[in-house]
Amino acid sequence: MQTFEEYQSLIQSVIEKEIGHREPVELYDPINYTLTMGGKRLRPLLTLLSCDIFDGNLQDALYPALGLETFHNFTLLHDDIMDQAPIRRGLPTVYKKWDANHAILSGDTMMVMAYDFILNSPKDLLFDIFTIFNKVGREVCEGQQYDMNFETNNNVKLDEYLKMIHLKTAVLLGGSMQVGAIVARTTKKNSQLIYNFGESVGMAFQLQDDLLDAFGNEDVFGKKNGGDIRANKKTYLYLKAMELGSTQQQSELKKLFDIQNGQDDDKVKKVLNIFNDLNIEAETQTLMDHYYDKAMKTLEEINLNQEKKAILVKLAESLMNRDN
Amino acid sequence: MQTFEEYQSLIQSVIEKEIGHREPVELYDPINYTLTMGGKRLRPLLTLLSCDIFDGNLQDALYPALGLETFHNFTLLHDDIMDQAPIRRGLPTVYKKWDANHAILSGDTMMVMAYDFILNSPKDLLFDIFTIFNKVGREVCEGQQYDMNFETNNNVKLDEYLKMIHLKTAVLLGGSMQVGAIVARTTKKNSQLIYNFGESVGMAFQLQDDLLDAFGNEDVFGKKNGGDIRANKKTYLYLKAMELGSTQQQSELKKLFDIQNGQDDDKVKKVLNIFNDLNIEAETQTLMDHYYDKAMKTLEEINLNQEKKAILVKLAESLMNRDN
Repeated sequence: MQTFEEYQSLIQSVIEKEIGHREPVELYDPINYTLTMGGKRLRPLLTLLSCDIFDGNLQDALYPALGLETFHNFTLLHDDIMDQAPIRRGLPTVYKKWDANHAILSGDTMMVMAYDFILNSPKDLLFDIFTIFNKVGREVCEGQQYDMNFETNNNVKLDEYLKMIHLKTAVLLGGSMQVGAIVARTTKKNSQLIYNFGESVGMAFQLQDDLLDAFGNEDVFGKKNGGDIRANKKTYLYLKAMELGSTQQQSELKKLFDIQNGQDDDKVKKVLNIFNDLNIEAETQTLMDHYYDKAMKTLEEINLNQEKKAILVKLAESLMNRDN
Repeated sequence: MQTFEEYQSLIQSVIEKEIGHREPVELYDPINYTLTMGGKRLRPLLTLLSCDIFDGNLQDALYPALGLETFHNFTLLHDDIMDQAPIRRGLPTVYKKWDANHAILSGDTMMVMAYDFILNSPKDLLFDIFTIFNKVGREVCEGQQYDMNFETNNNVKLDEYLKMIHLKTAVLLGGSMQVGAIVARTTKKNSQLIYNFGESVGMAFQLQDDLLDAFGNEDVFGKKNGGDIRANKKTYLYLKAMELGSTQQQSELKKLFDIQNGQDDDKVKKVLNIFNDLNIEAETQTLMDHYYDKAMKTLEEINLNQEKKAILVKLAESLMNRDN
């Protein structure tokens, strides 16, 4: 077994190998920019870790892992156009640094590249890997559509929100682990279970993201807290507060989330006050714990020794105790 | 062998089988709209014809053919955003009927669907088929980028234009035929040659498109001639006229192509007058004939009987003598 840092440096080296000068530069510059702007590299890490934990050949998992990272980065690139987001990972988005057309076409090309990277998987596994990848890829698009629908829907239910983050985030984390397991040629049961494990961890991961956005460490990337609040995003925190709040708190929250001026610090403060009054941080933590427990229950069923299970526990913990 | 019409009805039936109600409707309605808005279905026809001509099993080619059509429709969907095109095939574009965000995300989903359709190819051929598809898919994106670059480049060379249409159009027609040949399990040589054949026919096809836009039958779809001229598109016709024209004609053309008002009938008339003075229609026809001859030379090398070669000749002729 290798360390998480070793997986990440493996990923880094294959990214560096694959980017480089290509023409037309107007197409490939935004791609190189996107692939080298960093990020947690979580999805390829999950693929490598999963492959390693089931005693697979890490070299066989490198390109599928790169494909998953490239796909994820492509979705961010296009999401940033749809959300008109100016900043990603502390840098201008492609949409902002170039324009929407460059972001559309570079994203499209990245998607083809993602498939092309995955095509470097062992040939006899291509069907199984692409089956997972296509299913998950489509679900991510569906999740993004639900997310956009929520912008104009003032009656989003908590379970609709959970379905949305399941599609938009959790399935890709599960799928990344499943692809690693397939490359390792473990049993069908194990590869399904590791998907379920990643899916549950993914739900907790996204809820943690919602929490960090409201209550996180402000120093990282110079990002200010409350971005979701400023953007009137109906996160779990907001929806839970709408559920638990008094009629007065509900109507105040509603009013605050009708304000379109994204720069209003006072608004963020007022919303956070309501969240605090309603104990929303602890409420969210409870749901995160639920998904964490679910992941741990799945882990029990996976056919792995205790030492390896401990690594998966460490992974889940590190994703739930992060500051960015 | 089946007739071209029979191939097209096979494609139609597989499209109808695959579209239907899916959620979220905001994502799938634009996809169903796009896949059922018609068009020539040329790419899947090429795949089926090529498979049939090399004695393959047509059923094995149906889903790869559908994948190629879906990919093509995805590129049109995204191109229409980038070009801000309001009309496609006589109907409002997705970009216009919904909006840019719906067009981006529906397009992304169609691309995943394209890969998923192709995944229904015979398993042992997946690697070869995806290799072609990924190469061609990326080239189509590169071609679109060059096309966009040309909008702000006042010094486009004829050979740069030919490279652009090669990437944007010809390689996908070649690739569609090659995929059919691979499904038919013909020799590597045949499958490369049929790619070359489709590529040359594709160049002639695109030049014909340029010609039809300027000199075509105005009745079809109620489309008015001169759309490229109104949009100041540097087609082969324009670039050839710039090459052959006198200094005065060059500067007049340049001036006319600086006019941003897209509805100017007088402008179209003036440009067409210059094209006529310089015999641009015949000049373009000469280059089309060059590519047609190239396709015929390639055909000689393909290992097929005369009866089957005659069908490919008929195909090439029908693509060069069309009115839309």
